[in-house]
Amino acid sequence: MIPKVALIGAGRMGAIHGRNAAANPSLDLVYLVESRPEAAAGLAAELGCRTATFAEVLVDPGLAGVIIASPTSAHLDMVLAALRVGKAVFCEKPLDLELDRLRAAEAELKAVDPPLYVAFNRRFDPHFQALKAKLASGAIGSLETLHLISHDPAPPPPSFIPTSGGLFRDFTIHDFDMAGWLVDETPADVFAWAECLVDPAIAEAGDVDTARVILRYASGRICVISNTRRSGYGYDQRVEAYGSRGAAMAGNPHISTLETWTEAGALAAPIFASFPARYAQSYRAELDHFADILAGSAAPLTGYEASLRALVLADAAGRSVKSGAPVALETT
Amino acid sequence: MIPKVALIGAGRMGAIHGRNAAANPSLDLVYLVESRPEAAAGLAAELGCRTATFAEVLVDPGLAGVIIASPTSAHLDMVLAALRVGKAVFCEKPLDLELDRLRAAEAELKAVDPPLYVAFNRRFDPHFQALKAKLASGAIGSLETLHLISHDPAPPPPSFIPTSGGLFRDFTIHDFDMAGWLVDETPADVFAWAECLVDPAIAEAGDVDTARVILRYASGRICVISNTRRSGYGYDQRVEAYGSRGAAMAGNPHISTLETWTEAGALAAPIFASFPARYAQSYRAELDHFADILAGSAAPLTGYEASLRALVLADAAGRSVKSGAPVALETT
Amino acid sequence: MIPKVALIGAGRMGAIHGRNAAANPSLDLVYLVESRPEAAAGLAAELGCRTATFAEVLVDPGLAGVIIASPTSAHLDMVLAALRVGKAVFCEKPLDLELDRLRAAEAELKAVDPPLYVAFNRRFDPHFQALKAKLASGAIGSLETLHLISHDPAPPPPSFIPTSGGLFRDFTIHDFDMAGWLVDETPADVFAWAECLVDPAIAEAGDVDTARVILRYASGRICVISNTRRSGYGYDQRVEAYGSRGAAMAGNPHISTLETWTEAGALAAPIFASFPARYAQSYRAELDHFADILAGSAAPLTGYEASLRALVLADAAGRSVKSGAPVALETT
Amino acid sequence: MIPKVALIGAGRMGAIHGRNAAANPSLDLVYLVESRPEAAAGLAAELGCRTATFAEVLVDPGLAGVIIASPTSAHLDMVLAALRVGKAVFCEKPLDLELDRLRAAEAELKAVDPPLYVAFNRRFDPHFQALKAKLASGAIGSLETLHLISHDPAPPPPSFIPTSGGLFRDFTIHDFDMAGWLVDETPADVFAWAECLVDPAIAEAGDVDTARVILRYASGRICVISNTRRSGYGYDQRVEAYGSRGAAMAGNPHISTLETWTEAGALAAPIFASFPARYAQSYRAELDHFADILAGSAAPLTGYEASLRALVLADAAGRSVKSGAPVALETT
Repeated sequence: MIPKVALIGAGRMGAIHGRNAAANPSLDLVYLVESRPEAAAGLAAELGCRTATFAEVLVDPGLAGVIIASPTSAHLDMVLAALRVGKAVFCEKPLDLELDRLRAAEAELKAVDPPLYVAFNRRFDPHFQALKAKLASGAIGSLETLHLISHDPAPPPPSFIPTSGGLFRDFTIHDFDMAGWLVDETPADVFAWAECLVDPAIAEAGDVDTARVILRYASGRICVISNTRRSGYGYDQRVEAYGSRGAAMAGNPHISTLETWTEAGALAAPIFASFPARYAQSYRAELDHFADILAGSAAPLTGYEASLRALVLADAAGRSVKSGAPVALETT
Repeated sequence: MIPKVALIGAGRMGAIHGRNAAANPSLDLVYLVESRPEAAAGLAAELGCRTATFAEVLVDPGLAGVIIASPTSAHLDMVLAALRVGKAVFCEKPLDLELDRLRAAEAELKAVDPPLYVAFNRRFDPHFQALKAKLASGAIGSLETLHLISHDPAPPPPSFIPTSGGLFRDFTIHDFDMAGWLVDETPADVFAWAECLVDPAIAEAGDVDTARVILRYASGRICVISNTRRSGYGYDQRVEAYGSRGAAMAGNPHISTLETWTEAGALAAPIFASFPARYAQSYRAELDHFADILAGSAAPLTGYEASLRALVLADAAGRSVKSGAPVALETT
Repeated sequence: MIPKVALIGAGRMGAIHGRNAAANPSLDLVYLVESRPEAAAGLAAELGCRTATFAEVLVDPGLAGVIIASPTSAHLDMVLAALRVGKAVFCEKPLDLELDRLRAAEAELKAVDPPLYVAFNRRFDPHFQALKAKLASGAIGSLETLHLISHDPAPPPPSFIPTSGGLFRDFTIHDFDMAGWLVDETPADVFAWAECLVDPAIAEAGDVDTARVILRYASGRICVISNTRRSGYGYDQRVEAYGSRGAAMAGNPHISTLETWTEAGALAAPIFASFPARYAQSYRAELDHFADILAGSAAPLTGYEASLRALVLADAAGRSVKSGAPVALETT
Repeated sequence: MIPKVALIGAGRMGAIHGRNAAANPSLDLVYLVESRPEAAAGLAAELGCRTATFAEVLVDPGLAGVIIASPTSAHLDMVLAALRVGKAVFCEKPLDLELDRLRAAEAELKAVDPPLYVAFNRRFDPHFQALKAKLASGAIGSLETLHLISHDPAPPPPSFIPTSGGLFRDFTIHDFDMAGWLVDETPADVFAWAECLVDPAIAEAGDVDTARVILRYASGRICVISNTRRSGYGYDQRVEAYGSRGAAMAGNPHISTLETWTEAGALAAPIFASFPARYAQSYRAELDHFADILAGSAAPLTGYEASLRALVLADAAGRSVKSGAPVALETT
């Protein structure tokens, strides 16, 4: 019996998860919940599922899980509502933008059953998985320093900024999770410098668009995170891990292997222009993971704990920018 | 109304096309035809379709098309049978191993309706498509010489050889089609040297496993084809196109972008080990193409003509190896 | 008339500069000054020059210039002595380890005649020069962030550490100069985290071996410097420059272009193992520059000012590590 | 006592060898022989040597060797004259364009003393040497096929063609020698197709500018040589060696490691534009080899035998083009 699931949200991420759910032979996508009628109808038709309200979805006893891709501000309430009626949850990151709200719901969010998966998709990227496996193999010795590069091709519309949570909570949050995944240790201190170099409208909206964040660990390890909202050359997503006996580098896949050799040099094809193409495999793999969770054969790779850890770092980075000094993290 | 299709054959290529057809939202896979009961049942269950005989399939008036992935020796008869009852046909390459048989059926095979698509999948590979687009853009001037590299990772079982048609008709056939696709001209002469270096059992079966074929065109263009049945490093599929103002190279995608830097050097991840992974995108794209053909929005990119052209070259290459001299091609 | 020069010091850098001077058709190397008799005799024989004392060299009226490659602690006194008798000076970096000493001699060191060149060789590296030219061309728009990677293959002997000046003055000094060369602006703040991860003997000697330094500029630009005393994979020297319309990356040359493709992947040849090979071209080019200075056709690219700027940054980075907070730089 | 040598010829190759000889500490360049007075005076001044006639050079009892870089038509007579008076000879390739003339002088040219080195410089290229060492290491198993790519950036002036000996004797001659060096076996058959695609003036002068040559060996090995007189993208010099367990590829060094990433893709710096830059290291290494020969510590790597072997192949390739069929080589 293939488990029935509902998709909440027909926005950009909703469409991605919806298409992957519809094509996944281990999931049966039956509902789409979306308040904008036109968006709902169009996507539901494409996905071959019904439209419904969130309330209707919650009371369907045959429904096994929900995929929440609503606006960020609605994530936490919807997650809790679904968990309370026993539905497994796939929630687009971030779970919430406020530490206090997360912590207040800790007991429910940490409960094993029903399970909660929070979609830190980069952990499912095959390039980064290959790097993690290489670290585990001991091929480069003991990990000492890490460099995470995450550069957006172009800034979001300024209207997005005020509700985004800001660069660290919206964007760097992925890098904070990657650091948590790749380094077997909790950071002791965070330092960040952040600027607005890309678009003055971002500064007017109270945010930054360019940052360097450094994490320091008790062992002496150091992790540098490099962020910009506009690269000019595509969606640049790399990890460089330096160990005691070598280094492992996960670079950018290119849109093709074509090279054009002329007097100007050898031009390689561009890297992917944005996340839907760059991370297509990881988004599909996340749905496979959710199917495994629903089948009881896997526990969520990331849930409340990972969300909290990443948000704590985002929060600390923001305080470092304000104070101009490193921020020590509580060790618990 | 999504067109209904049947899959003929549950072998290696049958499984690939079947999975892609089942996942394709523009195709409705309803039948699997396979004479081995166990293979049939297993794949049909996976694909969510019924098993049937070829005869049953042909008489279903609701069926729009068939995907033929039976053994090569059965291709032509099945294609003709399907065309005669008005079914659109997707046929795995080669259409047939004998020029005489192909030509004898020319009238039916060339007919536009029902359409016949012969699966030269490499034309749907995004890397080679990027190269073809680059040639068309004029970026490297006029095409002068071409180098097609097609190296298998490991030889097929010797038992496959006797019915394979031999290296040129089974393997190089793809390269002959690629030359036909990339060079806007019919070759004038063919020369080939072929050897058995990989496995003496292949020679005992009357075949070769290593070859270099050269095509010469009336314009003076030259195309070199490099083939081996065993590379030792993966499935090597490249195209190098040299023009009057530069060169375009389509290389091998790697299984990941991981590089490991140690004292030994910088180790890039391996290339794909075999065709199902290397050409996964092209196999999916072929099914999209077949869906477009069924929808009437596309004419088959390759059918009788391409099959004939490629087989003529395979035939000529074989005669060149036997005679030890170039073979001139009839110009028609 | 080819200008006569003397080499001071037959150590590792002395031998490099000596061989380049001897092979340079625009320089006539006549003296070697070295207090260890055996080292002196051996290198002088190889270079085809006489041994002499520093005092003898200074009083030779036919001598145009001196190449100072003595121990760091002797640099400044020798430089001043040579300048005072009118000799042009090529001084291995650093000019001195103490800001006070440098500033006390400012008037003499800044004088245009006789000229003083301080050997920040990386500015002469063709890869970094190509990057600088690319920045100047506007191809990547306006420079926004910079990443300088400078990883030693293996740590120096612990006995070297106490007189080295420490990581920032001995090693990062090159990166501080590179930042000064590539960014058209003086840093406003410096932040550094530094650790001892490579060899406890380095910590015992009071130094660190792994560091990340960040420079922030008034314009909002940010420069990250990545240092380690032991990479495990060779001498890693890269520059990544990110601009408003793209990025420019100067990578590591490899010892050859050889790639070995096996089932394990594609192994590129190692990068160079240490600075004499990696920077061979830059060391030769420095001597060409000194020949041009002697010929009056060039002014020193780097002298007192560059030395001071780099040392100010090294000093500030050290203070940041001690205080655990960013250090603001005086703007002059 | 550093051996005294004379340079014959102040043309393009003469200047290269002359500069390398002058800078080589193990050679004492004392004479330049050049019939064009201006060219002679200019280069002699630069190299710091005297001008002389060939006759004067031959009778100097203190002279150990000659470096012959005169026009090809003069090579053989000068080589013989020098050998007859006991001078060691460095002769720019080819030794001669005619097999009969070579064979007629076999006894003198094969004599060990005085030694004759013929300058097949590619054997001294570090990239190709790394490839040869990799083959010898067994890392790719037994060598099966070889692909030599040798593409000139731009054609020579048409006036050069009539005295050049034609594409195979002037240009492919290097590839024929490379095949001889890399494959431990003498080719059994040669096949070639050659065209004039680059410049009709080359055809008018009776030559071709684009060719593919195949060598077949008794063991079944196959070597493809790819030549053009005009690449449009630089001086392309590569070797691809395919073995039973993998492949080894020696690619093109680029003029720098710079990559520029923009929306158009990642542009690597161009490869070298022509042979003086691409093969600079090999030309220097050849002179080191000649110094070793003069010192008695090395026997010439290539002399009469290598010259004969390469010319036999060039001759056979030319006959293959004329006859349109493979040419069998005498096995001796």
